[in-house]
Amino acid sequence: MAVYQAPLRDMRFVFYELLGSDKVAELPPYQEVSPDLVDAVLEEAGKVCEGVLFPLNRSGDEEGCHFENGVVRTPKGFRQAYDTFRDGGWTGMACDPAYGGQGLPSVVTMLVEEMICSANMSFGMYPGLSHGAYKALKAFGTEEQKALYLPKIASGEWSGTMCLTEPHCGTDLGLVRTKADANDDGSFRISGTKIFISAGEHDLTDNIVHLVLARLPDAPPGIKGISLFVVPKFLPKDDGTPGARNGVACGSIEHKMGIKASSTCVMNFDEATGWLVGEPHKGMRAMFTMMNAARLGVGVQGLGIMEASYQGAVAYARDRLQGRALTGAANPDAKADPILVHPDVRRMLLTMRAYTEGGRMLAAWTSRELDYAEKAEDPARKAEAEDFVALMTPIVKALLTDLGSEVANLGVQVYGGHGYIREWGMEQYVRDARIAQIYEGTNGIQALDLVGRKLPTGMGRQLRRFFHPVSAYIDRAMDDDDLSEFVLPLAKAFVRLQQATGFIAQKGMSNPNEAGAAATDYLRLFGLVAMGYLWVRAVEEAKDKTDGDDGAFYRAKIATARFYFQRLLPQTGALFAALMSGAGSMMDFEDAAF
Amino acid sequence: MAVYQAPLRDMRFVFYELLGSDKVAELPPYQEVSPDLVDAVLEEAGKVCEGVLFPLNRSGDEEGCHFENGVVRTPKGFRQAYDTFRDGGWTGMACDPAYGGQGLPSVVTMLVEEMICSANMSFGMYPGLSHGAYKALKAFGTEEQKALYLPKIASGEWSGTMCLTEPHCGTDLGLVRTKADANDDGSFRISGTKIFISAGEHDLTDNIVHLVLARLPDAPPGIKGISLFVVPKFLPKDDGTPGARNGVACGSIEHKMGIKASSTCVMNFDEATGWLVGEPHKGMRAMFTMMNAARLGVGVQGLGIMEASYQGAVAYARDRLQGRALTGAANPDAKADPILVHPDVRRMLLTMRAYTEGGRMLAAWTSRELDYAEKAEDPARKAEAEDFVALMTPIVKALLTDLGSEVANLGVQVYGGHGYIREWGMEQYVRDARIAQIYEGTNGIQALDLVGRKLPTGMGRQLRRFFHPVSAYIDRAMDDDDLSEFVLPLAKAFVRLQQATGFIAQKGMSNPNEAGAAATDYLRLFGLVAMGYLWVRAVEEAKDKTDGDDGAFYRAKIATARFYFQRLLPQTGALFAALMSGAGSMMDFEDAAF
Repeated sequence: MAVYQAPLRDMRFVFYELLGSDKVAELPPYQEVSPDLVDAVLEEAGKVCEGVLFPLNRSGDEEGCHFENGVVRTPKGFRQAYDTFRDGGWTGMACDPAYGGQGLPSVVTMLVEEMICSANMSFGMYPGLSHGAYKALKAFGTEEQKALYLPKIASGEWSGTMCLTEPHCGTDLGLVRTKADANDDGSFRISGTKIFISAGEHDLTDNIVHLVLARLPDAPPGIKGISLFVVPKFLPKDDGTPGARNGVACGSIEHKMGIKASSTCVMNFDEATGWLVGEPHKGMRAMFTMMNAARLGVGVQGLGIMEASYQGAVAYARDRLQGRALTGAANPDAKADPILVHPDVRRMLLTMRAYTEGGRMLAAWTSRELDYAEKAEDPARKAEAEDFVALMTPIVKALLTDLGSEVANLGVQVYGGHGYIREWGMEQYVRDARIAQIYEGTNGIQALDLVGRKLPTGMGRQLRRFFHPVSAYIDRAMDDDDLSEFVLPLAKAFVRLQQATGFIAQKGMSNPNEAGAAATDYLRLFGLVAMGYLWVRAVEEAKDKTDGDDGAFYRAKIATARFYFQRLLPQTGALFAALMSGAGSMMDFEDAAF
Repeated sequence: MAVYQAPLRDMRFVFYELLGSDKVAELPPYQEVSPDLVDAVLEEAGKVCEGVLFPLNRSGDEEGCHFENGVVRTPKGFRQAYDTFRDGGWTGMACDPAYGGQGLPSVVTMLVEEMICSANMSFGMYPGLSHGAYKALKAFGTEEQKALYLPKIASGEWSGTMCLTEPHCGTDLGLVRTKADANDDGSFRISGTKIFISAGEHDLTDNIVHLVLARLPDAPPGIKGISLFVVPKFLPKDDGTPGARNGVACGSIEHKMGIKASSTCVMNFDEATGWLVGEPHKGMRAMFTMMNAARLGVGVQGLGIMEASYQGAVAYARDRLQGRALTGAANPDAKADPILVHPDVRRMLLTMRAYTEGGRMLAAWTSRELDYAEKAEDPARKAEAEDFVALMTPIVKALLTDLGSEVANLGVQVYGGHGYIREWGMEQYVRDARIAQIYEGTNGIQALDLVGRKLPTGMGRQLRRFFHPVSAYIDRAMDDDDLSEFVLPLAKAFVRLQQATGFIAQKGMSNPNEAGAAATDYLRLFGLVAMGYLWVRAVEEAKDKTDGDDGAFYRAKIATARFYFQRLLPQTGALFAALMSGAGSMMDFEDAAF
């Protein structure tokens, strides 16, 4: 049966020992973020996730959301859980204290988000989308808009959405047809249909603040003619409380593979009143500004599912008695051995573990840099962090969500037939995890972002934010005998990454399809190398602590790293060979023959 | 939206051109299996699958099976579809004409099964399980049992089940607790609980014939004390029609991730009357005899899902207009290009295609040999075929079902957000495909079967049935310039396979965990090499036909092969590196640290 306990020990390892993230307190807004505070936040978050959100995960999946006459009802218990969550201040954990938020840095909130996604990914969608709307308004809203909306969103009284997709366009938002016509009072009339709107309608909050992409009458065609509007479900009265119903309604909800307790709505805007956010026709710029954080958040969903699935699989592998160890009975007094004795079961568990812990390191590293990108006072440090986050975001998003699905599928496999039965809870992780590879830009789009935007930026400037420190680290670590079994394969994989980068830079220049054909394999190669780098650093951190009180933790860290380098990193060779074969095999195929 | 058309052209290519399977008519029971007959069978099967079964696939998934008071009702339309299917003689297509069957060889029925699984995998479970029961009774039943049951099963009036799994044991059937006590009249009283019984109860047939593993009072412990019994739902009267209800009832049905229109039952046997099939305590031998065919059938489920998912993905990639080709508008008159222009979409489609067509070649080759294993008159030819089928069965089962899930997931990805919505039909393939990696022996068990049983048999005798012809073929094909781009990577991968085989043989001898740790990667390595061998042969067959009337078909065949060798076969390098690292990284990990 699925189980979940917040992995606080490993989170502390990543936060303090690996990344020294307590230094984030050097950033002025985070002066008060002390280790005591961080520990308290993680512990409290763990309690809420284990005790309040996780118990609703299966029931929420079975019941799903209900739609009737434009009203969406979330599953039993969600409303109470949301109240608890909100009362604990979690909706505002990453929000500015000026608007009533907790003002925690990303490297802390990312860990909390991981726990939320482990415990109940569907539930996490509601505050998650709100935070997207919060960020858009905070970055581009007027002072008046900010004063009106941000405190309500931070407190969780109101929630938010991002209304981008339309029936005929998701990836290519230049095709957006929703239109906005000016009223005399400075507001706009918004009309059109949006689909796949997460948290578009629900019963958790008093108001829902939609951020909507639409086109002004004088808009240039395509992506440069999209503007952003704020369209509340209820028009705020002068005192800031919800007033008259606006012309926006939920037409239906989708029946999906997973995240069934998250409402995914068709939203119809019929001359709804909205207000411009930011400049006319510059709506996509606003979107792109938020996108790093949102994509990072989706990567963390993959991570959350991995952790939960791993824990569930380990519990079963210990409990299930079946067959005997290949080397003879391990448990001779019982009729059978736990399946944990089998190398193939351990292979699955260690694959899950290595990806999960590696994913946590990667997401936390990127989140810490996001804090510096947003708050560093030194312009050079800030620019460096911005570059790094821009580079790593598509990797974190795509790699961690692809691995999320792989790990969730392994979790089912460990359970055998029981994994396929809904009540055991393991197949839900597969269904929930699957969407994260798709939304917030499909993983193919992430790969194109990496090769098409991030690689060429500043003649590889963003790339160097990763390549230089990793290269320097490898040179240094090569001399450490304790690390050589890890550094040597890393160095080999890193060379492949460098060569692949050169190949794409050169070939892609003359033919963009060459970059496109390499993109997905390249992103994964990059991600596995990045994870490998972090695994060596984790070993370096652990290697002198294996005899202490917590020695088992550090020994496991090193053993997991060993598994990663011996069993998982070799993929980089195959990825390298595949991508170096070029675009011919896919572009020369005759269209009619598919 | 999901679409399906029977891939008759490619089936004919595999059947006639690649494998020369029309030669199966040289086997006495198949003398009348002419090309005309084969073509007619495939065409008719295609019509039934496209027109009758496929339209019920989505509705069957949405509705699922209903359980009330021990009665199971299949989804709307299934009963009528089953009647049509039965009236067409499809339930008996592989059955002996002596019992009213059509007497078709496996290499033909496998292709029909593929179509059934593409069109409606849940539906296919009912006749599929019946055929398992048919085979068990045919091989081990008394003449009386055969006369009573086989005509009814072949005609589809009655269906069958295989009752193996119990709550505490699936993989390890030595733990079976269901007991059988002798009555005075030669029958037995069977009591116990079986779970995960596919088609255990339903409303499609007049009777259900359960084949049940149980333990006699004097049974030795473990796997050598299991006997096989036939336990009909209604006890046949003297005239062979269903009489009194037997003491077997469905206690509940499972709520599963997928194949929701297939009933998966808890079956309670309460002093049910049964009759011994075969010798006492030799039930597992009977099971193993049938297992090759059943496992091959599950591999074909993976194949069927791949074909359907590929077709659905291609249809969407042609229709969906979104963005522009990286090299400039391909469709300048429209607002966007079809997503088929994108290299990453083509990468996904060609991956799906190469695995699907490769899987068909592999399954058909093995099925043809199954016909020789069962019916060849020449003992040497028969023994050779038996070895080959024994060797390839775990590979076909595990590889094709793993790829089934991978391909189905790519199908969802091609659809983007729409892939996640149930009504589009693509996510159902993911959910349906998932079980095939688990049942009929998990894929981990298949891998253990390969390294633990098949490799050592006769000092590698089974292995040589594959290695020798492939090795000879590579030597010969090396001299053909037209083939060199394909043969060279195949030769390289084949060397890896040979080295890995030597490694497992040597290491596994002293430590079985070494074989266990290598098993899953080895199986996939083996399967990819086998597929690669078939892809070269397909190119050899196609290369002189590219200018003819059907030139596009053959050019696509060669282009798909090229994609396979450039983009997919390189995995073998990673698999080789991973498995050669040995068992240490997983066996040395401290149990308590998981």
